[in-house]
Amino acid sequence: MIAEPPPRTALEGARLIASGRLTSEQLVRSYLSRAKQRENDLRAWSHLAELEAVAESRQRDRETPKGLLHGVPVGIKDLSDTADMPTGYGSAAYAGHRPPADAACVALARSAGAVILGKTSTTEFGGSEPTPTRNPHNPAHTPGGSSSGSAAAVADGQVPLATGTQTGGSVIRPASFCGVVGFKPSFGSISLYGTRSPSWSLDTLGLFAADIDDVALFFAALRGEQTLAERPPPQHRPTVGVFLGPYADRAEPWAIEALETVAELCSALGCRVANLTAPAGFDRSLDWQRTISRFETSRSLTFEWTTKRHSLGAPLKADIRQGLPIAFSEYEQAKTESSKLAAAVHERFTGYDLVLTLAATGEAPLGLRSTGDAAFNRSWTLLGLPCLALPAALGPHGLPLAVQAIGARHRDGELLAHASWLQYMIRRQGLYPD
Amino acid sequence: MIAEPPPRTALEGARLIASGRLTSEQLVRSYLSRAKQRENDLRAWSHLAELEAVAESRQRDRETPKGLLHGVPVGIKDLSDTADMPTGYGSAAYAGHRPPADAACVALARSAGAVILGKTSTTEFGGSEPTPTRNPHNPAHTPGGSSSGSAAAVADGQVPLATGTQTGGSVIRPASFCGVVGFKPSFGSISLYGTRSPSWSLDTLGLFAADIDDVALFFAALRGEQTLAERPPPQHRPTVGVFLGPYADRAEPWAIEALETVAELCSALGCRVANLTAPAGFDRSLDWQRTISRFETSRSLTFEWTTKRHSLGAPLKADIRQGLPIAFSEYEQAKTESSKLAAAVHERFTGYDLVLTLAATGEAPLGLRSTGDAAFNRSWTLLGLPCLALPAALGPHGLPLAVQAIGARHRDGELLAHASWLQYMIRRQGLYPD
Repeated sequence: MIAEPPPRTALEGARLIASGRLTSEQLVRSYLSRAKQRENDLRAWSHLAELEAVAESRQRDRETPKGLLHGVPVGIKDLSDTADMPTGYGSAAYAGHRPPADAACVALARSAGAVILGKTSTTEFGGSEPTPTRNPHNPAHTPGGSSSGSAAAVADGQVPLATGTQTGGSVIRPASFCGVVGFKPSFGSISLYGTRSPSWSLDTLGLFAADIDDVALFFAALRGEQTLAERPPPQHRPTVGVFLGPYADRAEPWAIEALETVAELCSALGCRVANLTAPAGFDRSLDWQRTISRFETSRSLTFEWTTKRHSLGAPLKADIRQGLPIAFSEYEQAKTESSKLAAAVHERFTGYDLVLTLAATGEAPLGLRSTGDAAFNRSWTLLGLPCLALPAALGPHGLPLAVQAIGARHRDGELLAHASWLQYMIRRQGLYPD
Repeated sequence: MIAEPPPRTALEGARLIASGRLTSEQLVRSYLSRAKQRENDLRAWSHLAELEAVAESRQRDRETPKGLLHGVPVGIKDLSDTADMPTGYGSAAYAGHRPPADAACVALARSAGAVILGKTSTTEFGGSEPTPTRNPHNPAHTPGGSSSGSAAAVADGQVPLATGTQTGGSVIRPASFCGVVGFKPSFGSISLYGTRSPSWSLDTLGLFAADIDDVALFFAALRGEQTLAERPPPQHRPTVGVFLGPYADRAEPWAIEALETVAELCSALGCRVANLTAPAGFDRSLDWQRTISRFETSRSLTFEWTTKRHSLGAPLKADIRQGLPIAFSEYEQAKTESSKLAAAVHERFTGYDLVLTLAATGEAPLGLRSTGDAAFNRSWTLLGLPCLALPAALGPHGLPLAVQAIGARHRDGELLAHASWLQYMIRRQGLYPD
């Protein structure tokens, strides 16, 4: 009676529950069983909440359906507060901390009927110090970061949905490395209330799922929508821009070829496809993103810096140490220049439904010492644009690579709709195993 | 030896300490004495931290000077976390809550050498339910809100500096009602990390002081600056725009006359002064601000709504209840329209160093049942522009009224510099008693 292995998507799980063919408890136990079996090898969770999740699933089975995610298990990146589970922000300074309230994303998920399966492993405050999490495709490789546990757990079928946060490339890059769909919405789409987000101009709550339709479902729930808006499928094939930009030389040649293969597929399917060049200033975007991120992080974490420095990891301390001397005028300048760049990019991208670029420079690097290069992510986070990682190729070591689809600010729904078509075509074409 | 009454400005207090003519303990005790003497009448504090503040001041007296605010007492609006003081967010649901860390603004103030005098009274989560705080100019009148305690405490000489937050008009309006300088910087200037800010696109940390130079000092400290940047005084008289806009009929006629008096003063002093009209769409800005504020607050406070509803006050419940049915598409539309309006306002205001408008519709209303009308504040918060309340008149009941000076986004320093000149001229002219 229990699905074994568990259903691959949240939509399928929700349908099985809604139709009475599965209880939430059965669904939750099937994911829990997978997670427990794999945890020693992958270390995706900082707290796997077996008792709490089973109790919550039983509650769902007694309730009238609450919302879009009724009975479906969800993983929460451990930067978000949970009132009933320890919340450590990936930091020794907060080991065992119990917040008084759920973060908004947790409360909204529960309010939509989700069952919180546990807290997923995060780098310290979303920084660059790796977690012990391993890549489910090959445990010798990093899953990427900072949302390491969420990407790995979803990729490994331990939970169908999980949250992440992105300041640079913390959602899109691990999604690419782990071969799952990752979505960083337009800046400011989902409440970060109760989620530790030190970089207030950049940090964005993101989502992981096996599938774009699942992402759309989860996104609606976390925005507090009661039902999934009926959205007619796009009336036309997407117009596609292909953008490599000034950081192309950081990518491995096979990765660029994989992107070109997707572009050729679009072209073969009748899409108008054009190569787009970077507007002036784009080549400075990584510098501006770093300035803003370090300035903000060093200010936000002043308490930790002044009172708990001995408990902080070396990479976070280095980030803060480099952020503290940044003058407000330099930070202000980076923000002003970024606003101008955003306008120029908007103009350059107008008329394209999907702008395709790389989600990462290549496969997940070997080893756990680095979470990889975010050069293809940080500019888009800076610009506040919605980004979607869509698995599209396997690399020379058999590890996944995603293409990244960029949309227009506050047009997230259109991005998801067009990318859903592309996902279908990529799978049908066999570019990436379904 | 103890200054009695305490010095009026933070700069003066800091100078007395730096020159060895006063210890931090003496300074802190002189403000504490004033605050304790007045607390029963004014109720500005949710927690007056006598023991902690005296201990912290003694520590300052032993340390080498830490930064811009060494030894100077500061009040913190009780939406910001303090590790060593109860933090209740103005809500019965969090009475006695003890957070694990200081909010960034608290840690930055301490890091600059400030002594936290206590937590000032706030409406529940910065909403519209009045606190018991009274207006120091006449206790039968409201001090305004939501930063009620900070405005009243600074106006009453109980503390030279205090923080606020503004979602609609929660800094500028109480500053006007209480006759102190209030400053809401450009959106995103100061970290809100550890400050409960449910409306993530609007909430901005703001400042109260007796004087613009004090505001500039406090602003620098909260941005993590180690020294006060040498800024040459403006090389020219400011060009002044006067803006009444579509909500002018909400203002009392004498208030509009007071604004005109300030504009005439500028003109008489050789400034170029012009009346500015509102660009298209401005008349909808209050609607958009309300949509965004309610949408975001209802999402952010989902935990409180679902688990602590019985503890929440009626105005907050009404706000959440009205926010929940707002669809994401309506919210997205309000954001998109606001961005367009921001561009139009930027264009209209270009060439003006100061745009003067009202800070409030008139004097503080009689009674404590309402914190007053924010019609002259909410548009600017929506647009993310820096706003400064500058006391400029006494109304028919002898209560203060401020003019509001609006600057360009991320040009906060220029706004403060030009407004400092205007403050000097208003005082010299005797429009508002120094």
